[in-house]
Amino acid sequence: MERSVSSTDTHRRRSFWGWGWEDEALDDRAAGNIAAAAISRMGGAEAGSDTSLMAAPKVEDLDLPESRVSPPDHLGAIVTADPYERASHTYGKSFRDVLRALIGEFRNAPDLVALPRKERAFADLEALLDWCASNRIAAIPYGGGSSVVGGIEPVVPDDYRGTISIDLRNLAGIEEIDSASRAALIYAGTMGPRLEESLRPHGLTLRHFPQSFEFSSLGGWIATRSGGHYATLYTHIDDFVESLEVITPGGDIVTRRLPGSGAGPSPDRLFIGSEGTLGIIVKAWMRLQRRPVFRASADVRFESFEDAVEAVRQISQAGLFPANCRLLDPTEAILAGGDGNVSILVLGFESADHPVEFGISRALEIARDLRGVCPPEAVRIQNRDTAAPAGHEGAAGSWRAAFLRAPYGRDALVRAGFVTETFETAVTWDAFFDLHSTVTREVKAAIEGVCGDGWIACRFTHVYPDGPAPYYTVVARGHRDPRSRLAQWDEIKSAASEALLKAGGTITHHHSIGRDHKRWYEIQAPPLYREALRSAKAALDPSGILNPGALIDPPPPR
Amino acid sequence: MERSVSSTDTHRRRSFWGWGWEDEALDDRAAGNIAAAAISRMGGAEAGSDTSLMAAPKVEDLDLPESRVSPPDHLGAIVTADPYERASHTYGKSFRDVLRALIGEFRNAPDLVALPRKERAFADLEALLDWCASNRIAAIPYGGGSSVVGGIEPVVPDDYRGTISIDLRNLAGIEEIDSASRAALIYAGTMGPRLEESLRPHGLTLRHFPQSFEFSSLGGWIATRSGGHYATLYTHIDDFVESLEVITPGGDIVTRRLPGSGAGPSPDRLFIGSEGTLGIIVKAWMRLQRRPVFRASADVRFESFEDAVEAVRQISQAGLFPANCRLLDPTEAILAGGDGNVSILVLGFESADHPVEFGISRALEIARDLRGVCPPEAVRIQNRDTAAPAGHEGAAGSWRAAFLRAPYGRDALVRAGFVTETFETAVTWDAFFDLHSTVTREVKAAIEGVCGDGWIACRFTHVYPDGPAPYYTVVARGHRDPRSRLAQWDEIKSAASEALLKAGGTITHHHSIGRDHKRWYEIQAPPLYREALRSAKAALDPSGILNPGALIDPPPPR
Repeated sequence: MERSVSSTDTHRRRSFWGWGWEDEALDDRAAGNIAAAAISRMGGAEAGSDTSLMAAPKVEDLDLPESRVSPPDHLGAIVTADPYERASHTYGKSFRDVLRALIGEFRNAPDLVALPRKERAFADLEALLDWCASNRIAAIPYGGGSSVVGGIEPVVPDDYRGTISIDLRNLAGIEEIDSASRAALIYAGTMGPRLEESLRPHGLTLRHFPQSFEFSSLGGWIATRSGGHYATLYTHIDDFVESLEVITPGGDIVTRRLPGSGAGPSPDRLFIGSEGTLGIIVKAWMRLQRRPVFRASADVRFESFEDAVEAVRQISQAGLFPANCRLLDPTEAILAGGDGNVSILVLGFESADHPVEFGISRALEIARDLRGVCPPEAVRIQNRDTAAPAGHEGAAGSWRAAFLRAPYGRDALVRAGFVTETFETAVTWDAFFDLHSTVTREVKAAIEGVCGDGWIACRFTHVYPDGPAPYYTVVARGHRDPRSRLAQWDEIKSAASEALLKAGGTITHHHSIGRDHKRWYEIQAPPLYREALRSAKAALDPSGILNPGALIDPPPPR
Repeated sequence: MERSVSSTDTHRRRSFWGWGWEDEALDDRAAGNIAAAAISRMGGAEAGSDTSLMAAPKVEDLDLPESRVSPPDHLGAIVTADPYERASHTYGKSFRDVLRALIGEFRNAPDLVALPRKERAFADLEALLDWCASNRIAAIPYGGGSSVVGGIEPVVPDDYRGTISIDLRNLAGIEEIDSASRAALIYAGTMGPRLEESLRPHGLTLRHFPQSFEFSSLGGWIATRSGGHYATLYTHIDDFVESLEVITPGGDIVTRRLPGSGAGPSPDRLFIGSEGTLGIIVKAWMRLQRRPVFRASADVRFESFEDAVEAVRQISQAGLFPANCRLLDPTEAILAGGDGNVSILVLGFESADHPVEFGISRALEIARDLRGVCPPEAVRIQNRDTAAPAGHEGAAGSWRAAFLRAPYGRDALVRAGFVTETFETAVTWDAFFDLHSTVTREVKAAIEGVCGDGWIACRFTHVYPDGPAPYYTVVARGHRDPRSRLAQWDEIKSAASEALLKAGGTITHHHSIGRDHKRWYEIQAPPLYREALRSAKAALDPSGILNPGALIDPPPPR
């Protein structure tokens, strides 16, 4: 990573209302510039626009509800009701979260926050879960808190006596490295930067870079089936999980480290994507890569979006496995230098073992056959000998740095009165154009109906031989009244979600279900399968205390 | 495939006691030759060896137990108690199965065999499951019957009133092809040859060739996490499953066709590997490939097995993704032209899109750096222009034909009085040498202790960046008394299984659990995870009628 910001930085504080570090939030001038750019992109009317900035809230001004429960003595050392901690654990980082935090709406703050200790990880977690189970307190596992789907928000059914957010940040670091198998046993609370910093001296990398990389944890990635660096092949964190150590109210589950197995349904796959409802992931053996030293990349421009999609389909089916294969539609491409008419395909190949010219040449051949334009001098090749110094990864590195900082800009737009959010899906190739036109049409109609001005843009974050994972960004002029503005987004989100499901997509490719997607998940996932999951949960979490309200309804307490 | 043997051949009959077609079983002369070769390989003593052949049994001579249950009228059209059908559905195809069948031991024959009709698939299956659930009859889903782990053997707990084998062979064929996404909706009862024949006119292939290919079905592959053609990357059938249609006693589950998803724990993964205990797979959308036209292959010889293993490790971690990367230890390599001291690595690359010289060159570079010997003229390259006519795939094709016919030879060895069987595992690289020496030592000791003469050989069937999947073959001189011979194998199998688990392996990489591996699976799989699986089963199969005795114990009936 370019910036060596470690989650162990003790002199810096995480924002309790918005993205990232408090001291990295955009100042008013920078925020104003971003707002003005968005307004001008909507076709003027800047003069009549009120983009005055909402002030960032202060912890000391918050009106937090009284904690309804207090910890017993034996948990006193690891449980706190500190207002900053409670406020920080109230929301994830979606548009809805940031806007509600900005207006000081914290009535769902967790009653308590727990910080189990690394040296007593299993004992602390067991004691916490026992106490919660005995007192019907909802226990919400918390990694980096970067959920954009209400995954860690302490909104639980009425019959719980209280809520406790269990923050795993102290359960961080690498316990063991197996260089021969290229794998490491890593604590679940390890955040992206620390994880990569610890592996770098060994020449290894997990190479999983979700946009939340700086502020999300390994356990969170696994619990939510995070999507990472690779556009093809190793797209989800799922592929990198070799084994898990999980604690549940019913006991521990430690799966066997195996490179592959055919022994019954995969136990790891039950917990991957379980979103804190089945157990708390404590450690995982993760499959690693050697750090790449060969790279090739290129941007290809297409006059026709349909041609570009067809090129991506053919590339995804050619067995070339690009690390990057990001198609930007004309609207999305504006930010990458497009003119609003051209689509841009960003291709990247990389390897720790061998030059990758062959892969990119063949991919460009396919793209050019479909009228893609990429002058030969625009193809960037980086081989071992020409490798940039560690930490400097050229254009791709700069792009990633900007990508990782984008959420700070999003916060500025929220402060300036916009509705701004993303949603994503995956769908088979045969259904893509129908899905894309349906989603675009329905969302545009919703934007026009509820907001007036705004836009929707699409890129592919990941592609598979059988279909792409389209990712949509919505930016619209919002109501000045925050409650009305939340309602505006809710309407747009409903229109988008209905369209996704109707057209054969998934409600989420990598953002997960949480609380916000639950009603669409209940349409997508077969009812009897959800019943089987709930039944499995009853064996692991008989009191139903683990993250109730997210993903699946807890079964009735035994 | 070289031989166009379709499962729809109505003039040929499957063997009820051994492998494959009745008329392809080796005749006495050929069987005698194989037995003589094995004896001479054990170091002579041929004169004193009794390798007289057991006679193949005849259906009309079998003493089948009376059926304990008879079907109600409304199932009369699809249920039979025909002796040939009952005998054919009594066993899979392991050594234990063939030997017990040879001696006419059929006391566990299913009471009935059901053949649901394609045009009424869901209705027939629902009626069958309803009847079984109401009458506590064990329902055992049956695909091709090629299990080598007792997966379809009607051995169930005492409290079941009877057993019915539900053969899906009529639920065969391809329902729909989506060429854009390269996927097809295929009935679960479709056997390998018919599946590939139906896809060929479309230029597509599932390219999944387990050794049982001719006599196993898509549904069986999915239910058992079958291992197929690809040595790397797409090793298990799991990777090719896009969605499933499953019927359970509790109702149907139809998952959504998606190229990727992050919506909760994967529903497909719950059924992949469930071995008929959670539901009956009726159809699946499968991810397909275009048929390869570019190929490269080479054999590399190593004086040192350790060097060869290190070469495979490095190749598996280089991101080259060979389709074939089969390492034969010195004993295994004898059948491939080795001298008993040399290890042979069989490498193959293939692509439908582009030449694969680059991949094989780099893999050979790695192998030669580790003292592997492969003269340049021994590298076979086949490009589009030089492609062999359809159905003729050169050396690899011949190898595959021999590989697919090997079980007929195994049957001959069983008839001649040998103990002969295989077992397989997967383990991380750091633990491989310890596992291999432990397994080899323990199994050799067991062979010597219970059989006297015999050998154990090892090959890698699949390799992963984090470890290989070693596959072991045992051939030993057996007792002439079949019961004693079964006990001999049981002792060797126990020694092997204990060693695998002790050394960190899985009890199975792709043969699955069935009944034969259950007691070791119960050591390998965390108890609480198995409890969660049983709990999920209670939601899907509340009466516990689905394949009781395999994989997991049914929960107590509700």
